[in-house]
Amino acid sequence: MAGREQKKSGGGGKKKEVKKETGLGLSFTKDENFGEWYSEVVVNGEMIEYYDISGCYILRPWAISIWENMQTFFDAEIKKMKVKNCYFPLFVSPGVLQKEKDHVEGFAPESDLEVPIAIRPTSETVMYPYYSKWIRGHRDLPLKLNQWCNVVRWEFSHPTPFIRSREFLWQEGHTAFSTKEEADTEVLQILELYRRIYEEFLAIPVIKGRKSELEKFAGGLYTTSVEAFIPNTGRGIQGATSHCLGQNFAKMFEINFENEKGEKAMVWQNSWAYSTRTIGVMVMVHGDDKGLVLPPKVAAVQVIVIPVPYKDADTQGIFDACVATVATLTEAGILAEADLRDNYSPGWKYSDWEMKGVPLRIEIGPRDLANNQVRAVRRDNGAKTDISRVFLVEQVKGMLDKIQQNLFDVAKQKRDACVEVVKTWEEFVTALGQKKMILAPWCDEEDVEKDVKARTKGEMGAAKSLCTPFEQPELPEGTKCFASGKPAKKWTYWGRSY
Amino acid sequence: MAGREQKKSGGGGKKKEVKKETGLGLSFTKDENFGEWYSEVVVNGEMIEYYDISGCYILRPWAISIWENMQTFFDAEIKKMKVKNCYFPLFVSPGVLQKEKDHVEGFAPESDLEVPIAIRPTSETVMYPYYSKWIRGHRDLPLKLNQWCNVVRWEFSHPTPFIRSREFLWQEGHTAFSTKEEADTEVLQILELYRRIYEEFLAIPVIKGRKSELEKFAGGLYTTSVEAFIPNTGRGIQGATSHCLGQNFAKMFEINFENEKGEKAMVWQNSWAYSTRTIGVMVMVHGDDKGLVLPPKVAAVQVIVIPVPYKDADTQGIFDACVATVATLTEAGILAEADLRDNYSPGWKYSDWEMKGVPLRIEIGPRDLANNQVRAVRRDNGAKTDISRVFLVEQVKGMLDKIQQNLFDVAKQKRDACVEVVKTWEEFVTALGQKKMILAPWCDEEDVEKDVKARTKGEMGAAKSLCTPFEQPELPEGTKCFASGKPAKKWTYWGRSY
Repeated sequence: MAGREQKKSGGGGKKKEVKKETGLGLSFTKDENFGEWYSEVVVNGEMIEYYDISGCYILRPWAISIWENMQTFFDAEIKKMKVKNCYFPLFVSPGVLQKEKDHVEGFAPESDLEVPIAIRPTSETVMYPYYSKWIRGHRDLPLKLNQWCNVVRWEFSHPTPFIRSREFLWQEGHTAFSTKEEADTEVLQILELYRRIYEEFLAIPVIKGRKSELEKFAGGLYTTSVEAFIPNTGRGIQGATSHCLGQNFAKMFEINFENEKGEKAMVWQNSWAYSTRTIGVMVMVHGDDKGLVLPPKVAAVQVIVIPVPYKDADTQGIFDACVATVATLTEAGILAEADLRDNYSPGWKYSDWEMKGVPLRIEIGPRDLANNQVRAVRRDNGAKTDISRVFLVEQVKGMLDKIQQNLFDVAKQKRDACVEVVKTWEEFVTALGQKKMILAPWCDEEDVEKDVKARTKGEMGAAKSLCTPFEQPELPEGTKCFASGKPAKKWTYWGRSY
Repeated sequence: MAGREQKKSGGGGKKKEVKKETGLGLSFTKDENFGEWYSEVVVNGEMIEYYDISGCYILRPWAISIWENMQTFFDAEIKKMKVKNCYFPLFVSPGVLQKEKDHVEGFAPESDLEVPIAIRPTSETVMYPYYSKWIRGHRDLPLKLNQWCNVVRWEFSHPTPFIRSREFLWQEGHTAFSTKEEADTEVLQILELYRRIYEEFLAIPVIKGRKSELEKFAGGLYTTSVEAFIPNTGRGIQGATSHCLGQNFAKMFEINFENEKGEKAMVWQNSWAYSTRTIGVMVMVHGDDKGLVLPPKVAAVQVIVIPVPYKDADTQGIFDACVATVATLTEAGILAEADLRDNYSPGWKYSDWEMKGVPLRIEIGPRDLANNQVRAVRRDNGAKTDISRVFLVEQVKGMLDKIQQNLFDVAKQKRDACVEVVKTWEEFVTALGQKKMILAPWCDEEDVEKDVKARTKGEMGAAKSLCTPFEQPELPEGTKCFASGKPAKKWTYWGRSY
């Protein structure tokens, strides 16, 4: 049976059994064994189930509800920008895929799948032949399309749930403008939406910046991104990217239009995307040794209400109070549920919902019932508060806001503590060894970045540029590049990355 | 260039050119050449673009917005039923796919794609191994999951946009219960939602019924469906299906649970789906020789406002009135847009928006401006009404409701006119020749249905049972089967179908 096989092959499968049987927590800690901790927490938190094809994962409702929360926000925002949703085919004909060498490099699922036609790794080559057909005159511009879909990338050896999977879900926006100015403006509007997804929804601090020539999207003009950082592994992670493609694809696919003056011109294009990777970053940044920690803004259940009966107590009264509490909170638009299962102890339920990362737990026992209060326990810091049921809604709303803010503040504190400013190669190597996110003055030469990669190769993986932040510290006259000693042009973040 | 190739290979491509250049209407009529009319209207109406892989189509924003309107309704309804969304992988490992012979028959994309792993045609075999892992006790039931995704079915020769495509979008619900009663109940709850999508949103009358043993979902216990009918082709079309799988898959995948009595039991399962085919049925039923006709409830634009300036008239005043009218309607939650393009005549714009099927057109000319009124023209019947701008919102809302209702009434009238009740084989053959949807008394024997198919084979395609309607007319004692002469057990709909 695949289900059984999967448990052996599927890594996390076994560990899940443990939990099923005992309800106990994690067998690895975040600090001592981050990798094992991560794959255990996504499984035990019921976000992921390992699948019997390596690199493919089952996204369970607990994960999809988070995805849908971000999607609702982003889809509404891009619709305000007059972006329209569409759906292009999953399959790419090889002719089109071969159009552009740079672009195809790194994207070649068909070679592994041995299919005559390829499955989209991204849709530039799928869509743009039709852009050249649809766009005739300046009145056809701007053309702004987006699609929510699955894409497949087969080429890699060490898959990680959410972070690097062979199939994943994303949105990909593809827009065409008559002027570079319009394209440049949109690139940053979209990047700001990505920042908001990370900072306002997932409570994760990110750095907005521009990718180096070596790290930019193949075939594009320039790439901007939001970069997150995972302190435990000392690795940066590209959170989402907003690319200006310039006119490269327009040339390739002959996307021309007649401008106001009646002259033939070429369009300026952007493409931008964020994926289910966002969820993995959230787990890595906020999760702890008790399991997931979900920011209230994306949690499917914001408050879990648990009855704490005692043998001689009014059990029925306690259960009724739990149901009434859920009703009051739901009425107020708070996502609350009661766990009235009779076959588990309150303690078991506490760990169970802590594992799933529910932001706030409400306990109701005999004393609470007597005092017309509830006991609220925060998932993020364990703080316990007694709340009078008279002020239930205001208090719970306030706590959820505090949790959302606190998760961001703590994450930012930890991230900032990892940032190190260096000026020399020696400082750079030391900081890299300390798993830092390194801000260094750079001459901005491609060969120098290649050289940095070569000189830092090792089992941990080489260092590379993460991004050149839009917020640039002052660069004193005569500052030298940390790696080449040549005059520095800019401050750039460097480090190992996912 | 794929874009160019596509125009030659892709059928509809060329015709699109015609429109682009001239803005004229369709070159085929619905009655004289339905097939050509259909592929022309989906392209010229900008719902579909032909793609350079046969059987794959580009779903343009005009189509996706309709899909999203139905999705918003259905997703909210199933969430009320406590169904949770998830996402399972696109790829199926052959081991799992081979599990069940009956089921696999007809589903074998990998044979054509030559991939070592298959791409899901539907997800029973993808999901159920994990159901067997997740379901342990009666407290794990019911398990109700749904996913919105793409599926691929390669096996067929004559693809048709929306109706039969190699890749399409759908939702697939997969639920497991501890009792058959719960499963039976859900099958009908979901079928009712499908009826509402067709009748309340798409304004298409459907018949709820049960499929014959020959036509039911392979491997299931029984299949219910909503059946629509296309008068022009005289073909029935399966609108959506809600299957009770019984315990067949539970046996296959060992999906067992411990019931309240502590005994090992097997779950009862359902699966149910509707796809982008719904959009094709809508086009076929409501479209006319001027193009698409969209029901207001699914239209991305419900009202198009067009200025009708005259040389000596106050053009600016007219344009302002158009903008103001859109603002007023938008304010009231009506989806309205103004077509202020200066390079097209009002007449050209009329045909353009008629082609796209916008339910209501509002014209504003000098006379309207003078009389503080607008001219409203219905897409469904061409009726023109002058509306005082004082009562704009109420009147427009009322007209949109009337259009929605009228589309359904007219479609029902046409459908009903095609229904023929027959008692004998001779009557059956005659009615089939007249492209009827035939209601006939049947002995309900599989061999007899096979025999009917064999005896009606021909270039038009064989007749088969469409469904046994839940609303059964009285069946007089001693009524004989129209095909076998044996005692009839029920009234069943027959005909050719898609």
